[in-house]
Amino acid sequence: MLVLIALLCAKPAYSEDGYELWLRYHPLASTQATAYRSRASQLIMASSTPTQAAARDELLRGLGGLLGQTPRLSDTVTRDGAIIAGTPASSPQLARLRLDTGQLGNEGYLVRSTMVDGHPATVIVANRDIGVLYGVFHFLRLLQTEQPIDHLDVREWPRIKLRVLDHWDNLDGSIERGYAGASIWDWWKLPDWLEPRYTDYARADASIGINGAVLDNVNAEAAILTPTYLQKVAALASVFRPYGIRVYLSVRFSSPMEIGGLKAADPSDPQVQRWWREKADAIYQLIPDFGGFLVKANSEGQPGPQDYGRTHADGANMLADALAPHGGVVMWRAFVYSQANKDDRAKQAYEEFKPLDGQFRPNVLLQVKNGSVDFQPREPFSPLFGAMPKTPLMMEFQITKEYLGFATHLVYLGPLYQEVLSADTLVDGKGSTVAKVIDGALDRHTLSGMAGAANIGTDRDWCGSTFNQANWYVFGRLAWNPTLSARAIADDWVRMTFTNDEAFVRPVVDMMMGSREAAVDYMTPLGLHHLMAYGSHYGPAPWDTSPPRADWRPAYYHQADRHGIGFDRTRTGSDAVDQYAPPLAAQFNDIKQTPEQYLLWFHHVSWDYRLRSGHTLWYELVAHYTHGVDEVKQMQETWRRLDGYIDPERYRQVAAFLAIQEKEAQWWRDACIAYFQSMSGRPLPPGFAPPQHSLKYYESLSFPYAPGTNPSALGSH
Amino acid sequence: MLVLIALLCAKPAYSEDGYELWLRYHPLASTQATAYRSRASQLIMASSTPTQAAARDELLRGLGGLLGQTPRLSDTVTRDGAIIAGTPASSPQLARLRLDTGQLGNEGYLVRSTMVDGHPATVIVANRDIGVLYGVFHFLRLLQTEQPIDHLDVREWPRIKLRVLDHWDNLDGSIERGYAGASIWDWWKLPDWLEPRYTDYARADASIGINGAVLDNVNAEAAILTPTYLQKVAALASVFRPYGIRVYLSVRFSSPMEIGGLKAADPSDPQVQRWWREKADAIYQLIPDFGGFLVKANSEGQPGPQDYGRTHADGANMLADALAPHGGVVMWRAFVYSQANKDDRAKQAYEEFKPLDGQFRPNVLLQVKNGSVDFQPREPFSPLFGAMPKTPLMMEFQITKEYLGFATHLVYLGPLYQEVLSADTLVDGKGSTVAKVIDGALDRHTLSGMAGAANIGTDRDWCGSTFNQANWYVFGRLAWNPTLSARAIADDWVRMTFTNDEAFVRPVVDMMMGSREAAVDYMTPLGLHHLMAYGSHYGPAPWDTSPPRADWRPAYYHQADRHGIGFDRTRTGSDAVDQYAPPLAAQFNDIKQTPEQYLLWFHHVSWDYRLRSGHTLWYELVAHYTHGVDEVKQMQETWRRLDGYIDPERYRQVAAFLAIQEKEAQWWRDACIAYFQSMSGRPLPPGFAPPQHSLKYYESLSFPYAPGTNPSALGSH
Repeated sequence: MLVLIALLCAKPAYSEDGYELWLRYHPLASTQATAYRSRASQLIMASSTPTQAAARDELLRGLGGLLGQTPRLSDTVTRDGAIIAGTPASSPQLARLRLDTGQLGNEGYLVRSTMVDGHPATVIVANRDIGVLYGVFHFLRLLQTEQPIDHLDVREWPRIKLRVLDHWDNLDGSIERGYAGASIWDWWKLPDWLEPRYTDYARADASIGINGAVLDNVNAEAAILTPTYLQKVAALASVFRPYGIRVYLSVRFSSPMEIGGLKAADPSDPQVQRWWREKADAIYQLIPDFGGFLVKANSEGQPGPQDYGRTHADGANMLADALAPHGGVVMWRAFVYSQANKDDRAKQAYEEFKPLDGQFRPNVLLQVKNGSVDFQPREPFSPLFGAMPKTPLMMEFQITKEYLGFATHLVYLGPLYQEVLSADTLVDGKGSTVAKVIDGALDRHTLSGMAGAANIGTDRDWCGSTFNQANWYVFGRLAWNPTLSARAIADDWVRMTFTNDEAFVRPVVDMMMGSREAAVDYMTPLGLHHLMAYGSHYGPAPWDTSPPRADWRPAYYHQADRHGIGFDRTRTGSDAVDQYAPPLAAQFNDIKQTPEQYLLWFHHVSWDYRLRSGHTLWYELVAHYTHGVDEVKQMQETWRRLDGYIDPERYRQVAAFLAIQEKEAQWWRDACIAYFQSMSGRPLPPGFAPPQHSLKYYESLSFPYAPGTNPSALGSH
Repeated sequence: MLVLIALLCAKPAYSEDGYELWLRYHPLASTQATAYRSRASQLIMASSTPTQAAARDELLRGLGGLLGQTPRLSDTVTRDGAIIAGTPASSPQLARLRLDTGQLGNEGYLVRSTMVDGHPATVIVANRDIGVLYGVFHFLRLLQTEQPIDHLDVREWPRIKLRVLDHWDNLDGSIERGYAGASIWDWWKLPDWLEPRYTDYARADASIGINGAVLDNVNAEAAILTPTYLQKVAALASVFRPYGIRVYLSVRFSSPMEIGGLKAADPSDPQVQRWWREKADAIYQLIPDFGGFLVKANSEGQPGPQDYGRTHADGANMLADALAPHGGVVMWRAFVYSQANKDDRAKQAYEEFKPLDGQFRPNVLLQVKNGSVDFQPREPFSPLFGAMPKTPLMMEFQITKEYLGFATHLVYLGPLYQEVLSADTLVDGKGSTVAKVIDGALDRHTLSGMAGAANIGTDRDWCGSTFNQANWYVFGRLAWNPTLSARAIADDWVRMTFTNDEAFVRPVVDMMMGSREAAVDYMTPLGLHHLMAYGSHYGPAPWDTSPPRADWRPAYYHQADRHGIGFDRTRTGSDAVDQYAPPLAAQFNDIKQTPEQYLLWFHHVSWDYRLRSGHTLWYELVAHYTHGVDEVKQMQETWRRLDGYIDPERYRQVAAFLAIQEKEAQWWRDACIAYFQSMSGRPLPPGFAPPQHSLKYYESLSFPYAPGTNPSALGSH
């Protein structure tokens, strides 16, 4: 027997390489499997459309892997434990059940235990095929996480309409801020060769409800709109279509000049308008369900409408008018700040866009980063959320860890996302959470969206590490329902990715839930931000004066001097606080009421200022940095105790990466303490170890080959 | 039972992804397996050194996979069918057998069927552990290719001492002329994280006898010699060491200036000499078995000794002196040609280096490309082979298909390598083959080497396509023994990689053997060369006048005009012919005696000149281009007939790539005919289809994102 298995499972040097993500479908413990098998005796499911076929294949693949047995395919229910999946339109049996599918919309589904033709059965029903596919993934997740399935009554639908991954992939195969290898889009061999990996990408996205992919970098190249590349885009779209994923493109605002031969790209120029209309028509000829454009304009050197004295609304609306006849949308980024504008960078997006509220076409979404600076380990939510009731605001999160340790640091972003989504803007009384702003509930927008800058590349495990996969996963789950708990999602992910063994699941979920706060502590505690090295954003460089722009220099943000540290954004400072609703503004304006996690974001504070702990700021700063490192050591200890619960391949990589994380956390702590001590002139509080090296040493380090840096676009995104 | 297998073999969307290369060890047909099992009943093999352990693990893995059963480990032979593997030093039993291991040297081995303690047994014996590992791979190959193993008497040793892969990998992860993804060296995570892939790379190399790897691009970066990177190099060396693979580095000649703070890099400067000595000492401190340096100097803009009025020998010897105390070698590239030198580029390496024969230190090898221009689909062998008897000449082949269709074209390079190796230089009478020059036999050199510019990257299948794996494979086998037949090696590779089914093996081997000639025909027939686009070298551009250097322009090589075409290298022309031994020079000087495959390499020929076929040159040129395309169509037809013999994953990719190859072969044929017709002014011979597009159209094509182009080094290598 074992011989036979060896025969059939001959494997390369390592097998558990992370490629399968959370869709591993490895055999369940036999007791569970036995129970589930009796609930998967036969399958009644159409497969006449590509999406129906994808759903049925996934269900058979999942059940086959998890239970070691696939249900018999049948047309009618003839035994207990049948599964019936489909839409009332595709399945007469389901139609006869007259289940209430109102409120489910086009993407929702029911998964319910019921009697069919006298037999206990499980039905997966939706109004559209794609809902059935989502329902299938939900049902499989219940098995993967070993939930009871005897009395199911699941009613699910997405709260957010556009759930999109932004791929910052360049046409040369590199990825800006990518730490997991090169672009998985093999532009060179497209459209002639469709890698099987494209299908697995679509499966993974669909399994968590992601329904859109922006294929190219927001720092866009005009070439993506040439016929040659549109053919390649169309080929990818054809792979993704059955999985409910629409393709979008980042477009360069000056494309009409670069590939259209026009003299200018002025949105008020009829020639320019025609060029975009004809380009949109050509795209929809190839891709009838094309999603639309993502635009980074007049930001960090990108061209835009302001080059011609027009507003962002003028630019967005021109593109929106070209797309509208086809049902496409424009996702216009609010991430703008100007070298010319000497005002607080954190205020500029708000100042730029709030006055434009109400001026955008109905098919325009404004895509706003979660914070007002740039994907820092922690930022207060952007004041734009809640400030533009007449405009659908789309959340932009970062999944790739540009500022959170690249590929190797174990940092679960669920708590960061949840912190932002559950933040209360108070713009419309208590409970006006950011989640309600972006899901459209607060201002009754039908158009809504959430985007995540992807962490996906050609690395075999897709994300550069197994734990980075959790960030892709939690983004999708929260885009589907922004009120879900990051902990519950982590629990699902750990079970699907590793094991259901409680002795492993509990400590690992705890470790994940604490990991983001640890990173905040060893990088930028107490509201500090943007202390990272210029360009690469790798490692600490609070001293760095090399960046060509003041607002790219760490000192711009920490403002440390002999007396204190922090950015005064109160009314006596930049007055950024008044971009928030009055009650929040008042709170942030008052150092006593400001949550200490945002202290140095809003206030310039004396080194000797006493925090709630009774300790001075200087003491707490050192304490937080030290605690961050201790937390990483604790994570290593936790992981050491878990050896043997999972495959050695992934176990060893996690252990090696935790060692790198500890080394780099120590480096962050020591370099920042050394630098800030040179400012504060204070002695190190008793009981804290001094930095391992001199400030000079830390300043001397350089990393010319740091990954993810796009030479064409230093700074950020 | 089948259920259980499904349980244990749950796989991702595609399983046969090419990762396993030719070491698949999938189950053999049961009849064969049964026969082999009786010859693998027990295993007597030490595993107390890393190399012994690697050899034993490989044997157990291979037998387990192929036979579904592993032999019992034992200390003594107690039953028929035992396998005893080791060295006389590591195994008393083997010592007692007193087998003649003379002549085997440090890397050779015996595999022999014999009686041990009254039992029929198979012994794998060598003088050193590494020989045992090579013997194990040989023994496994016999099983993989289903050879009889009852009466074995194999005596093998390498004919060439240094069998090296040159990786043109940059420190930023890109690969110059790489078409299989990014560098597999994850410099960023080294030395902290050692990917399992490094071990599989070492296994694959060792399985074909490769014993050296140059880790970085010949267009080298000084940073590779900094302590930070040497730590990373040392980590890789530690993974490769058990597999008998030494690491080498490409070094930048001006490193003492860039990272040493010196004012110059003059080899006669004692400071410079000391810097290199100390650098070598530091390297050997970290890597006791470090191989040495590969140097590209005073070539295509690279710095070198001539910057200081010194010779290549002066530069090479300085480095050789630094390495000599540690047993390291210098591999100095002869690939030089100067913008200033207006003489025929094909003559320059010879002119530069022949006068230096005898001036190099004993630990210097001169690394010479197979042809005198640059890795073209076909070139006559370089006249340097045989011209420098006092200097060990090392062969440099290209495995990556820079000029032969990148990743997608199916071109087996075995015939190209064999054509060069078996070419007779006649320098010392008949039989003075290039193979005898480089294996040291002709001039009695103990130091000998063969290098191949690798085609390996992060693509899951390592080489960008399954068939490209055959080029890595054949390079290694020929480096071990340059007299082996390319067809026999292809036969082994097909069986190990796909199947032993004759109905598949025969047509595929035939297809492979014909594939290189097909590429010559649709790209550069009849001795044409370097018609490729500037920079990327992708696709035809015989018209291209954009390159900044005359000797980078196709017209420099084809010399086509109203009257004829071809480069006159006869005595009335550049007289390159006289760089060959007199009898060859006379042959190449005479158009009538010149093999037609080299016709336009050596002669400028009238369009109306009659070839041996009786047809004019113009007719034959069109006929060859057309025939090349027909050959690719034939390959597609062959492949279509083979559907079902192998897994669908690899089958489909080969089919898709053949379609790309056909499209590009047609493009090559049509573009070249259109261009040369504009020169010849001749009508298309009857019966030949006209180009599908106008010459203008072909001239208008551009490919800004062609892979493998190193912005820092256009031109070639």
